[in-house]
Amino acid sequence: MDMQPLLSAIESELQRQISRLDAPRTQAFHEMLTYHMGWTGEGAGPDATGKRIRPLLVLLSSAACGAVWQSVLPAAAAVELVHNFSLVHDDIQDNSEKRRGRSTTWVKWGMPMAINVGDALFVMANQAIMDLKENYEPEAIVEAADILHNTCLELTRGQFLDMSYEERMNLTVEDYWPMISGKTAALLSACCHIGALLGGADDEKQEAYRSFGHYLGLAFQVQDDILGIWGDEALTGKSAASDLMEGKNSLPVLAGLSANGRFAARWKQGPIQTAEVQELARLLASEGGYETAADASRQMTDLALLSLREADPQGEAGDALFELTDRLLKRNQ
Amino acid sequence: MDMQPLLSAIESELQRQISRLDAPRTQAFHEMLTYHMGWTGEGAGPDATGKRIRPLLVLLSSAACGAVWQSVLPAAAAVELVHNFSLVHDDIQDNSEKRRGRSTTWVKWGMPMAINVGDALFVMANQAIMDLKENYEPEAIVEAADILHNTCLELTRGQFLDMSYEERMNLTVEDYWPMISGKTAALLSACCHIGALLGGADDEKQEAYRSFGHYLGLAFQVQDDILGIWGDEALTGKSAASDLMEGKNSLPVLAGLSANGRFAARWKQGPIQTAEVQELARLLASEGGYETAADASRQMTDLALLSLREADPQGEAGDALFELTDRLLKRNQ
Repeated sequence: MDMQPLLSAIESELQRQISRLDAPRTQAFHEMLTYHMGWTGEGAGPDATGKRIRPLLVLLSSAACGAVWQSVLPAAAAVELVHNFSLVHDDIQDNSEKRRGRSTTWVKWGMPMAINVGDALFVMANQAIMDLKENYEPEAIVEAADILHNTCLELTRGQFLDMSYEERMNLTVEDYWPMISGKTAALLSACCHIGALLGGADDEKQEAYRSFGHYLGLAFQVQDDILGIWGDEALTGKSAASDLMEGKNSLPVLAGLSANGRFAARWKQGPIQTAEVQELARLLASEGGYETAADASRQMTDLALLSLREADPQGEAGDALFELTDRLLKRNQ
Repeated sequence: MDMQPLLSAIESELQRQISRLDAPRTQAFHEMLTYHMGWTGEGAGPDATGKRIRPLLVLLSSAACGAVWQSVLPAAAAVELVHNFSLVHDDIQDNSEKRRGRSTTWVKWGMPMAINVGDALFVMANQAIMDLKENYEPEAIVEAADILHNTCLELTRGQFLDMSYEERMNLTVEDYWPMISGKTAALLSACCHIGALLGGADDEKQEAYRSFGHYLGLAFQVQDDILGIWGDEALTGKSAASDLMEGKNSLPVLAGLSANGRFAARWKQGPIQTAEVQELARLLASEGGYETAADASRQMTDLALLSLREADPQGEAGDALFELTDRLLKRNQ
């Protein structure tokens, strides 16, 4: 199945949603949003927009359950807007100056404006889901909105845990899953769940799709964590081991802290310097950090595929869901 | 009509909504929200909660149209949660260290956590409006949610204008209304509109309620602007003329800038010092700033009352709406 028509339609729908601010008095405001979305300003273009995985999951899940994907475009836009709202606020919270090689919103327009940009993206996500009314009955919209809102609360829970972990020195592997369930898995889960709901799937099938998205999110995050420490720079676009320098509480790091060996001792002493990163990554691997994460990645990938087979997605869109999963979880590499 | 049962029910409903975060891993997060809402921490109590005007307007508008006010409590909670989300983000954006005499959320827990607190309050507003499903059909919920979401976009528009004005030196009275329509009037308007909708009012009556809330918001804001410069400290709880020192682009100030006289010349030179505040307030009054604002206040108050009479609210709740309007617009003082 050719993804290009879906990706083009997603982009058009996102632009339509965001055009709500395209009015004389709010031109500069509109421009902040179109810049963040990757459409305008320096470095605009396909590399700046992100891969739109989440809206693709909505469209493919719905189509694999029998819907015409065009009819669920507002829901696809909604999840991508939620994702981008969280990115804008995340960048402020993490003090990140770059995203996809471009200056972040707060760097360009200041923190107060950037908070407002995130808020506006969030509002538009809510408006987008309501736009389903062009094609769906109010019952379905309320159900889809419920899923989306519950997911957003999960996002704030995950974000809270992530930030609160920065001050804690007694973290273990147990602390990882609730954080990542909120920060990453909840939204991917919602994409597949909402897609199946709008595709007319029954409760059992919706649950299989929801579960697929959940494990897909967990597996994806764990892989990302592994690449962030031992990854190929050319592949990830960020310097390998940079997660160690940023002090990120990734799964390998929490496994290393649980092991409570030499890695844990060094980690607790404070920020990691460039010169020691390679040695520390080796140390973490030797103390089980790599193995724990690789095991978890395999387990979560297996569970994602098990759920997807249970969901039994139909037709071209179904095949595309399996292909997208393979691509995301790099099973061919 | 005794407001106490309504105020108690509003508080209970808000607590119920916010209890979504009352779980073992997110206790500290839950506490940030209950602190902001005025229920816990230093200085907690009636003075810290605010007057809950917005949820009262929802309940009274619905009851004045024939609804049982208890059935619309989730909508009342939703508007108050939106209001409080905007306060938390506003305090960060304005760098305000105090609200109602207490340290603001960002002062207590840092800016990154405070952004997340605001986000969570916003999510809960969305969840609250969906909770209407206990008493309402999905059609009505989608309509109410649409009103709320459109209002939230107005809030971000108003916030954008307010922040962008800080860098502009050529402001006039014309720039005031779009800002204040978004920042203050939109939400009050939504309260009355949603109340009337849920009370079963027809389109024409809904429009009268919407219009009442809009002008009530404008009148209220203009009065607040006047008190912020020439007000009685004992009445407002903040030192009179403090708005001048904060550089707030209030209606009197924009009128003074439009007059382009001695006040405007001084204003453009930079921050106002304590020593010159009284003299500058006198100067602004002599150049028409007070008169313009007082005229506008009278006009907006008249329009609010005209709309309310057109809405023709019934029964005890109807009387209470007139009384609340009188109290807010200080017509008896």
